[in-house]
Amino acid sequence: MRILLVGGRGTIGRAVAAELAPRHEVIEAGRNSGTVALDLADGKSVRRALDSLGPLDAIVSAAGHVGWGPLLELTPAQWDFSVSNKLMGQVVLALVGAEFLRDGGSITLTSGVLVDEPVVGGAAASLANGGIEAFVRAAAIELPRGLRINAVSPGVVRESGDDYASVFRGFEPVPAARVALAYSRSVEGADTGKVYAVR
Amino acid sequence: MRILLVGGRGTIGRAVAAELAPRHEVIEAGRNSGTVALDLADGKSVRRALDSLGPLDAIVSAAGHVGWGPLLELTPAQWDFSVSNKLMGQVVLALVGAEFLRDGGSITLTSGVLVDEPVVGGAAASLANGGIEAFVRAAAIELPRGLRINAVSPGVVRESGDDYASVFRGFEPVPAARVALAYSRSVEGADTGKVYAVR
Repeated sequence: MRILLVGGRGTIGRAVAAELAPRHEVIEAGRNSGTVALDLADGKSVRRALDSLGPLDAIVSAAGHVGWGPLLELTPAQWDFSVSNKLMGQVVLALVGAEFLRDGGSITLTSGVLVDEPVVGGAAASLANGGIEAFVRAAAIELPRGLRINAVSPGVVRESGDDYASVFRGFEPVPAARVALAYSRSVEGADTGKVYAVR
Repeated sequence: MRILLVGGRGTIGRAVAAELAPRHEVIEAGRNSGTVALDLADGKSVRRALDSLGPLDAIVSAAGHVGWGPLLELTPAQWDFSVSNKLMGQVVLALVGAEFLRDGGSITLTSGVLVDEPVVGGAAASLANGGIEAFVRAAAIELPRGLRINAVSPGVVRESGDDYASVFRGFEPVPAARVALAYSRSVEGADTGKVYAVR
């Protein structure tokens, strides 16, 4: 398969690339890395990247940023950033990406544990994750040409390091390689409308 | 209790008013109706409405609009409208509203069945509902002064009429009065971080 991987240089993205690259052509895209420049928060950049690549069999997003901070101190700019990046950025990638996928191709987005297990400071992340998971369930019943869409909802990734550990104290870390398996199931299996919670 | 009800003239809002008004002072707010003018999509209007009212014991939103249409025909303007109205409009109402609630006061937002049971044309509604439910779970663990927050996730309301019936064929309709009970539980009970699915 010919697979576009957005966010391939992140902790999860590297594990996804390691899982898929032995069997497939993996093209990495990112704001500041990868073969193709792609900024999730900029719809024009998404279309430009896809235009430059030609037909694909799968699009995987292991990307998406959100604002962090105490609930009542999150600024409107932080909310806007979270919505336009991790939430609507991934939605636009899916909707524009659908045009560039071959029949039966797949889209895999990323949500996360905060959708149902919140932590202090993570309200914008929770909201983005909840929106992504509901969108995936909805989009699955409307995509044409046998196109599929799923989300992976990872727990705290072991390799993410100490910054995350202090926020997610008590959460059992998940090896990135285990998280990557869920992306492989989405891309190489036949599911659609599914959320893979890897916890 | 002194309760602000946003969207009190809608199908659900009227049932919520009927449930709560015999026991409480219910102040209705809406874009074009109610005692107070309040446009969910306009943060300044939300603050102005709350400023004019003084201390409250509960804020209930039975409001929030979204764009409808086939997945691949939803326009960027329809996505923006959905996000700024039903999703971030209710979030802003909660965050600004928290300042105006007495200790132990409550916020009750509205999501809906499309969060987990999608229909054709409803992807933006699904996304907004998913965001709201995850936000409520997250906000509940951070709100100060014993403030509480919950969401009601109604099925298709029987009184909504034929427009909805054709979109939700096969969904078992729920009487608005049953949906209203969930708002009463949220306002008059002690729950927080809960989603009441009334299906």
